[in-house]
Amino acid sequence: MKKLAILGSTGSIGKQTLEVIENFPKEFQATYLSANNNIDLLKQQIQKFRPKAVVILDEQCAKSLTKEFGGTTKILSGEQALQEIVQQDDVDIVVSSLVGFAGLKPTIKAIEAKKKIALANKETLVVAGEIMIPLAEKHNIELLPVDSEHSAIFQCLVGELPNKIEKIILTASGGPFRNHSLKELETVTIADALNHPNWKMGNKITIDSATLMNKGLEVIEAHWLFGVRAEKIDVVVHPQSIIHSMVEFVDGSIKAQLGAPDMKIPIQYALTYPSRAQAQWPRVNFSKLKEMTFFEPDTKRFPCLELAYSALRSGGTIPAVMNAANEIAVANFLTGKITFNDIPRIIRNVMEQHSSEKQPTLDAIFDADTWARRKALEYI
Amino acid sequence: MKKLAILGSTGSIGKQTLEVIENFPKEFQATYLSANNNIDLLKQQIQKFRPKAVVILDEQCAKSLTKEFGGTTKILSGEQALQEIVQQDDVDIVVSSLVGFAGLKPTIKAIEAKKKIALANKETLVVAGEIMIPLAEKHNIELLPVDSEHSAIFQCLVGELPNKIEKIILTASGGPFRNHSLKELETVTIADALNHPNWKMGNKITIDSATLMNKGLEVIEAHWLFGVRAEKIDVVVHPQSIIHSMVEFVDGSIKAQLGAPDMKIPIQYALTYPSRAQAQWPRVNFSKLKEMTFFEPDTKRFPCLELAYSALRSGGTIPAVMNAANEIAVANFLTGKITFNDIPRIIRNVMEQHSSEKQPTLDAIFDADTWARRKALEYI
Repeated sequence: MKKLAILGSTGSIGKQTLEVIENFPKEFQATYLSANNNIDLLKQQIQKFRPKAVVILDEQCAKSLTKEFGGTTKILSGEQALQEIVQQDDVDIVVSSLVGFAGLKPTIKAIEAKKKIALANKETLVVAGEIMIPLAEKHNIELLPVDSEHSAIFQCLVGELPNKIEKIILTASGGPFRNHSLKELETVTIADALNHPNWKMGNKITIDSATLMNKGLEVIEAHWLFGVRAEKIDVVVHPQSIIHSMVEFVDGSIKAQLGAPDMKIPIQYALTYPSRAQAQWPRVNFSKLKEMTFFEPDTKRFPCLELAYSALRSGGTIPAVMNAANEIAVANFLTGKITFNDIPRIIRNVMEQHSSEKQPTLDAIFDADTWARRKALEYI
Repeated sequence: MKKLAILGSTGSIGKQTLEVIENFPKEFQATYLSANNNIDLLKQQIQKFRPKAVVILDEQCAKSLTKEFGGTTKILSGEQALQEIVQQDDVDIVVSSLVGFAGLKPTIKAIEAKKKIALANKETLVVAGEIMIPLAEKHNIELLPVDSEHSAIFQCLVGELPNKIEKIILTASGGPFRNHSLKELETVTIADALNHPNWKMGNKITIDSATLMNKGLEVIEAHWLFGVRAEKIDVVVHPQSIIHSMVEFVDGSIKAQLGAPDMKIPIQYALTYPSRAQAQWPRVNFSKLKEMTFFEPDTKRFPCLELAYSALRSGGTIPAVMNAANEIAVANFLTGKITFNDIPRIIRNVMEQHSSEKQPTLDAIFDADTWARRKALEYI
């Protein structure tokens, strides 16, 4: 029986992780859950999964939960509590599925406590890969990617010898605006941007998919997870989202992982790795699928992708700055304060103002994050 | 330095194996070559690769070669000599690339001598998988597939735990007659049939590709190599031949191996396995490729595929009978004696007349082969 702490259990990845483990009641148990403020869903999850403890960030919510469940489930609140639950003895795997920069500290604590990490929070590696990877190596912890693209690459690499990668080919759906002109992009609505053609995901990542910043973050994540330089990471637009990503090896052979666009497949793989378990998730039928198509990404219309490559090449605190500016820009797009094309403008502006610090400490990264959020807000 | 015996060095796979090892003069050496009767090419190969010995089946050719090279290279002739060279101490890998049933005996001898086998001769497993697989297991020999489809599956399975395959998905180009009606197939010429859209291969396998018998043989080969039952092996037509085959696992995740349609990639993989080596073989450019398409195979127009599935389900000596009838039919199509649609008719007729023997000995397989060749010729 593997015991799970699921950080962000009411988010898209958290909910699907619980769906996965429902199928394997003898193999997995959710001992800890955490949520931001979605108290109704968290209540349902407590009733169904009977965790030992839950963390809810909002204190008022915590009080209300304590009244209802205090007798059987420990109710904690605050960020500090997140860092505590991941270190508990009755945790084997930490599912790190908080949104954005918030995932960083609890993931560090989980690695230090030598827990297996199912990593859905890509921002952790984007902003602090330079610290996280040596930390994971030091504690001999394998970071198991949950992102479908990185799970695909990870699956393609099992059983392969090191240093045989010629190129990583990340696939991108192209998002809902794949065929929009730059001018059309200026007037897209929030609802349009949230209407992803293939994947049902949280709001932040759905907007990131529409701007291609999501792919940019994934380029940086792939760099850290697989030790491959920026110039060896390609992005190809593949609107059907059936090939989740590929690895080209030095001999010209390419391996790809494919599947229905359903996050439960990579989530389950991270939990069962190195094995696999029988499950009835949606299947691909190739004769019905008929075709898979491929295009080059257009960085004129989607400059976020190029911004991410440039952040990766520069290194230091620049990726953290880019990520923070993006988080602020996306939040403000979602509340209607800025247009879609303002998102890359704001990020570029903040990045250009930043003096990057090389080989930053964690504190320097936190400072850069804070600075970039303020700058982005000033610009807006 | 790995030392190679290449059986069939003047054939398509043999020539390409020599092309591969030319790139790695410090890693590979061709110590033994063999040819049927292509003496001119064999002479060039002797001059270039300086093997220790060569086997040429034709005795007259052997005499002529001895005159020219007898001082430096040992010249042997006859089938028995093939079985001797594969057992020599200065052989690490036997590249089994003879055409058809002839590959069986030398491959058995090579396994018994505990040599690594790079297996390009699919007929070996088709007719005698029931004997070959336990033999390879007994001698603890891994059969390294050279066929692009089986190499693809083999590559998808490295690092995966056993018994996690839900389905093998063999891709088929569909051959030159993919869009021909049954009536149009009646009048196709030899030249049409030899004009494969993607792969440059020997004549026998090119005709087998046009009838889809090649895919049928591959279904049987996959069954034996990977221990998967007939109903778990699907065939999907993929005209671009970029995905060389796929494995669907029990969790719904699919892995595929892709590459330019160039046999040197799977040949090299078989030689370097479990590692890979840098090489400049043609690469796939996905943005240029633009699309990959998929169709169900049509067993009405291409009955050979269904005949092979039925032979696999029946087992015993039936696959050997099917293979022998196919070899005779293809040879007679290539000399203009029968039409394209006669090929499946002859095979079906011979299969229907055969009383299959369960768990056959090698002798029973040889008898079935001889019987089927005679029956096929009678029918013609």
